[in-house]
Amino acid sequence: MPDFAAAENPLREGLRLERIPAPNTMIIFGASGDLTKRKLLPALFNLACDNLLPQEFAVVGFARRTKSHADFREEMMQAIKQFSRRRQFDANLLQNFSERIFYHSSTFEDEGGYAGLQRLLEELETSHQTAGNRLFYLATPPEYYPEIVQRLGQAGMARNGRGWTRVIIEKPFGRDLDTARELNRQVLSVFEESQVFRIDHYLGKETVQNILVFRLANGIFEPIWNRHYVDHVQITVAEDLGVEGRGGYYETAGVMRDMIQNHMLQLLALVAMEPPIAFAAQEVRNEKVKVLQAIRPILPEEVEKFVVRAQYSFGSFGGQQVPGYLQEPGVVPDSRTETYVALKLYLDNWRWAGVPFFLRSGKRLPKRATEIAIHFKSAPHLLFGAHTAGLEANVLALRIQPDEGITLRFAAKLPGAAIQVRTVNMDFRYGTSFGKPSPEAYERLIWDCMLGDSTLFTRRDEVEASWQFVTPILAGWQQRNDQPLPQYPAGTWGPPEAEAFIAPEGRRWRRV
Amino acid sequence: MPDFAAAENPLREGLRLERIPAPNTMIIFGASGDLTKRKLLPALFNLACDNLLPQEFAVVGFARRTKSHADFREEMMQAIKQFSRRRQFDANLLQNFSERIFYHSSTFEDEGGYAGLQRLLEELETSHQTAGNRLFYLATPPEYYPEIVQRLGQAGMARNGRGWTRVIIEKPFGRDLDTARELNRQVLSVFEESQVFRIDHYLGKETVQNILVFRLANGIFEPIWNRHYVDHVQITVAEDLGVEGRGGYYETAGVMRDMIQNHMLQLLALVAMEPPIAFAAQEVRNEKVKVLQAIRPILPEEVEKFVVRAQYSFGSFGGQQVPGYLQEPGVVPDSRTETYVALKLYLDNWRWAGVPFFLRSGKRLPKRATEIAIHFKSAPHLLFGAHTAGLEANVLALRIQPDEGITLRFAAKLPGAAIQVRTVNMDFRYGTSFGKPSPEAYERLIWDCMLGDSTLFTRRDEVEASWQFVTPILAGWQQRNDQPLPQYPAGTWGPPEAEAFIAPEGRRWRRV
Repeated sequence: MPDFAAAENPLREGLRLERIPAPNTMIIFGASGDLTKRKLLPALFNLACDNLLPQEFAVVGFARRTKSHADFREEMMQAIKQFSRRRQFDANLLQNFSERIFYHSSTFEDEGGYAGLQRLLEELETSHQTAGNRLFYLATPPEYYPEIVQRLGQAGMARNGRGWTRVIIEKPFGRDLDTARELNRQVLSVFEESQVFRIDHYLGKETVQNILVFRLANGIFEPIWNRHYVDHVQITVAEDLGVEGRGGYYETAGVMRDMIQNHMLQLLALVAMEPPIAFAAQEVRNEKVKVLQAIRPILPEEVEKFVVRAQYSFGSFGGQQVPGYLQEPGVVPDSRTETYVALKLYLDNWRWAGVPFFLRSGKRLPKRATEIAIHFKSAPHLLFGAHTAGLEANVLALRIQPDEGITLRFAAKLPGAAIQVRTVNMDFRYGTSFGKPSPEAYERLIWDCMLGDSTLFTRRDEVEASWQFVTPILAGWQQRNDQPLPQYPAGTWGPPEAEAFIAPEGRRWRRV
Repeated sequence: MPDFAAAENPLREGLRLERIPAPNTMIIFGASGDLTKRKLLPALFNLACDNLLPQEFAVVGFARRTKSHADFREEMMQAIKQFSRRRQFDANLLQNFSERIFYHSSTFEDEGGYAGLQRLLEELETSHQTAGNRLFYLATPPEYYPEIVQRLGQAGMARNGRGWTRVIIEKPFGRDLDTARELNRQVLSVFEESQVFRIDHYLGKETVQNILVFRLANGIFEPIWNRHYVDHVQITVAEDLGVEGRGGYYETAGVMRDMIQNHMLQLLALVAMEPPIAFAAQEVRNEKVKVLQAIRPILPEEVEKFVVRAQYSFGSFGGQQVPGYLQEPGVVPDSRTETYVALKLYLDNWRWAGVPFFLRSGKRLPKRATEIAIHFKSAPHLLFGAHTAGLEANVLALRIQPDEGITLRFAAKLPGAAIQVRTVNMDFRYGTSFGKPSPEAYERLIWDCMLGDSTLFTRRDEVEASWQFVTPILAGWQQRNDQPLPQYPAGTWGPPEAEAFIAPEGRRWRRV
């Protein structure tokens, strides 16, 4: 088992394969927000602990509130201690990391604020030898993205200068096809596509990356990964939480925008894509976008046939009674925002023709779980006759979270004198197999961006292809807003409509 | 004909799928031997404990020594307590079982002894209502088989009479093609093939039976179970023991006769056969024999190219020094009996053309292990380049013993920022998964014979096809008896010649 220590002397470790990014400064717009505290600074710190950051590095928080470097450092140190996946902290490392944190106060609209930022960056580039490489991270509410991008452009800060300039854009990227196209137009009027890193943190998760390794580094799965052997595919993203006080935000989103358009269609693309010619950004994304473009459209008038939406109602969870969505703070009393979606889609291509993909996601389901399950066809001829009662077809389940791993369901003989066949599981768990914690998604993605590797980021055409599929469904829902919206009690697996929806061809939702 | 009657009340056990054999008497020839004590009586007792024996049942030991029923019962009760897989004994069950045990003293050559046996059986058929069904079990040294069979024929006891008459014949069945043919001729001059059950206790092992269930009750393995996806197959039967005082017997056998001709070629047949049209005796054996007949012959002049034989020499085992084969009691000082064989064979059929099957078996290897390993081809195009150092192709290993189970070796991403691919295992264990002990091979096979199901027994043509393959190899060895015989120290994985033998095409023996 290789370990990942020792940035100091790479020769000491024959097995070291990680690269160290070039010196750089990362600038976080929206540095007062939750994302900065909970994810971004802890991720940077973890990268530093793993010796994956260059020594010549600085991070600048950009936000409206007036604050000293010291105040911001203090806040971030607290955040790191609270949210880092590490549970032990080396005082020297903390101190060293803290000294690389800076703060710049400005509104996002203030031209002068950008000039001030430019001066600070130039100072840091000298004092910290960050070589002019800059990574802008847009962690603000999405309505500020165009403003910030435009101001950076006007200030001459968007172009690659002495070093590289890159920008990470948080989700949501648009709220339908038109707004996504408009945002792409705005961003690309200032940056080039190669500078733009649209983040989807699902792509940073270990098991998501492992989908490709699993499919393409093994000889035995690709041959059965197609319409001849696959009956259908289920992709589930279940959340146990409700909207958790963010009802106001959620009212503008819903599961379709919050989960399906981005994360779940990305999972779909990774599972269904053709093998790329190389594991490199353009090649992988060329194949992913082909999947997204191959999704058979669901027209507004077809939504009832292919999509179920629902809202959670009053129910109980873990022995406690919890409110329904309409009772959540910030939610309008007649809201039609969906907290659950189940949909069926087809890919119109040679590999997957006729194979349904079922996607479902919801809040306030009985547990938190993300899983991709390939349901294979049954053996064509059942030899064991009466002794196979209850036998189920093979399922290969890729668990994304929690308890990341892979399970293969197969039939085996029950010990005993008679031939009795039962379904059993073969299991692989990331945690127990590798004995070390997986890095967090943001660590991987920030590090990739610093290295200029956009393989795990979403390209312009991918975003637009996703919205192209999702937007007509949203439109269909709009047209049907006079019809009743199915409900499911909090703590249950969605509305009965979702069961009825998958049942006609003898299928049912997998218990995750 | 066996029927589906359950012990007392079939309705009481909804899930009961086992059938109960018809009333019968089992007669063991060679009842003083080890097999009777260690395997046969414990197996019968275990079947009784599991309610798999009919209430109307008796067992008669037939051997030369004079002994009362009571003496024999006492001996067998001791043997059961010592060798049964059960560790707790119900006194009533023991008593009840003991009362069904009888003894008949006679030499195998004495005509009067068979007449006496007939009288005893007729008595038991009345007193125990065993309905005239008789199961003769030949557990003597093989030289007595023709005598016993002939005497049974002469006494008019071989034909199906009021009930059925069956005969189980222990291994070895012949010692080359001619002797096997002759034995078949003798047996079949008295019995019909449908009455003859040639036992191979490997076929009674759970995981051996599971080979077929695994292949044929799952939809995902058959598509890759052929020359397109399989690089080669390794079948290993490793024993840690030496000849254990049975040097005299072993001198007449050797690994080729003791392991390969029977057990290992049967494993080969189960792994390589085409799906039968039904899981029934004729259909399964029709397919198995096709595999055995498809083995490309190894001519006497080719043995060095395809077969390695060796003998263990002085070595150490578990920290203790152990003698070499030539120093074992009962072994002649210039013996050329092989204690290790590795061989490569090809099946000349559509499914397996060009796929080598490597078989190896030996005594005094580092551990006891039986395993079938399907080594698949690597992925055709490796995307992960430098990060796949040490990556191995997929292997599906079916472990027959110990720790019966199935392991799938595959490539997964190592957690961490870089894409590093490692080989990991997905595992299924019979013991932990089903939480009940597997029945012993003899239990299954005796029970099958009582039910008239010969699926797991070897048919005449199978035995002859096996010897047809093995005999020319034995002949080739005879012709080369002036050449040195490779040695391997006890406690090692065979001679260096075996490594060299598999290496040329980039393959190596799997560590079991």
